[in-house]
Amino acid sequence: MTLALNQQELSDYLQEIFPQVHRDFPIDALDMDGITMRLKVGEQHLRPGGTVSGPSMFALADVAVYAMVLSRLGRQALAVTTSSSLDFLRKPTAGCDIVARGRLLKLGRTLAVGDVLMHSDGSDNPVARATMTYSIPPERQ
Amino acid sequence: MTLALNQQELSDYLQEIFPQVHRDFPIDALDMDGITMRLKVGEQHLRPGGTVSGPSMFALADVAVYAMVLSRLGRQALAVTTSSSLDFLRKPTAGCDIVARGRLLKLGRTLAVGDVLMHSDGSDNPVARATMTYSIPPERQ
Amino acid sequence: MTLALNQQELSDYLQEIFPQVHRDFPIDALDMDGITMRLKVGEQHLRPGGTVSGPSMFALADVAVYAMVLSRLGRQALAVTTSSSLDFLRKPTAGCDIVARGRLLKLGRTLAVGDVLMHSDGSDNPVARATMTYSIPPERQ
Amino acid sequence: MTLALNQQELSDYLQEIFPQVHRDFPIDALDMDGITMRLKVGEQHLRPGGTVSGPSMFALADVAVYAMVLSRLGRQALAVTTSSSLDFLRKPTAGCDIVARGRLLKLGRTLAVGDVLMHSDGSDNPVARATMTYSIPPERQ
Repeated sequence: MTLALNQQELSDYLQEIFPQVHRDFPIDALDMDGITMRLKVGEQHLRPGGTVSGPSMFALADVAVYAMVLSRLGRQALAVTTSSSLDFLRKPTAGCDIVARGRLLKLGRTLAVGDVLMHSDGSDNPVARATMTYSIPPERQ
Repeated sequence: MTLALNQQELSDYLQEIFPQVHRDFPIDALDMDGITMRLKVGEQHLRPGGTVSGPSMFALADVAVYAMVLSRLGRQALAVTTSSSLDFLRKPTAGCDIVARGRLLKLGRTLAVGDVLMHSDGSDNPVARATMTYSIPPERQ
Repeated sequence: MTLALNQQELSDYLQEIFPQVHRDFPIDALDMDGITMRLKVGEQHLRPGGTVSGPSMFALADVAVYAMVLSRLGRQALAVTTSSSLDFLRKPTAGCDIVARGRLLKLGRTLAVGDVLMHSDGSDNPVARATMTYSIPPERQ
Repeated sequence: MTLALNQQELSDYLQEIFPQVHRDFPIDALDMDGITMRLKVGEQHLRPGGTVSGPSMFALADVAVYAMVLSRLGRQALAVTTSSSLDFLRKPTAGCDIVARGRLLKLGRTLAVGDVLMHSDGSDNPVARATMTYSIPPERQ
């Protein structure tokens, strides 16, 4: 299997369909082994105290797996998240972006599953991990 | 066991520590059986197409369980989410608030676990379910 | 929607396709609100120390949701588990059966989701909770 | 940090405390990067049709993370599973052992989190993934 969209094409497509999302979650790297996606941390991603919020890390993992699915299937924005699990492991470093490394574990006819490990930029210890399952509608066929 | 904070006291405390969160997630009901919390859906909770976003539903479940923990432990803002699972079941009704019904399944010395069922306001079919585990720091003792 | 199989018909079908499973996991009750299924605890379900093992509770939750799916779809043994989450809340009471109460949250065209709350027989406090997602193959249509 | 128990010491300890478990789940490799554990598939791990059962894969992931925790903490059998998530990705190859590769994502004062990727022996495509959270009792200190 090959990538239907390379990094630039995928960035362009995300910019087109989700401009707000794409600005906050740029793609650092993409290949058949997976994706590296960044959460550019701004005020709106913090909760009181200055920590990156749980919903922001959920969003990062969700977008990272979605982007991997698009990179394989091409320009079709229809997959929807059905199941997710997320574990918070450590407090993120204040003032740092969060960098997610995702890999696609399954891309089936109706379901895709990816997992994601998230670090504070420049740190070795993961701050969170997530698994996301996407349902792929039959209309794509 | 009894509630350390009733609905009004809990609302006041959330307003004090998380004013932004409290505005978006008011408490409709609270008793020993659980909590009913509302996501007042605004533009910031929607993704393109008008559906309530996954991160917004994650936030609703997370805040609902956190609020239940506070209602039992009293005014101490220290518990942190450690594990979560979330299943998306149906597309929410456009333009409707999401109403979450949460119950606390465990309140132990170091861990609290709650689950949450979410509906579009006025609808019988759940749009999502979630389980949230909170770690309670020993400092509270 | 109605039940395609009532409690007796579902028991008979499970006995036919999974005789071993059916012996360990009898159905106490079944209606449109959900299922009550029992783990008849034997030596093979215990781990050293006498506690009911995690895999046995996983099996109970998995079979309970599977049985609910069958009760709606009828005699077709093809659904497979795709995602699951399970939280262990308390140590089960030694020497007691585990009683699971399950409800079906979604029965879609390709996915079914159910959650399950498990108690030691005769106790009010849950020992575990689980959510199970089943994929329903298109062959059923 | 170093290993408190090397592969041989850990095998000896598992043999001592869980002889039945150790026979079914031998350790193929252990180092600071993680563990490789095998499910030696026997009749008792199969469900009708010959597929490795979900509860057997749950058990493999659970034991693999437990063994990693022991390898770091030493001879103390007290950690208990609190949360788990498991995704089934593909049907295992009939007649093959399942090989799990686990890594410890967090080893905190009260919680340890590990994730596990499982393959049919000799195959490249994962059949399942799991995350397990263990609670570490304070008595250890």
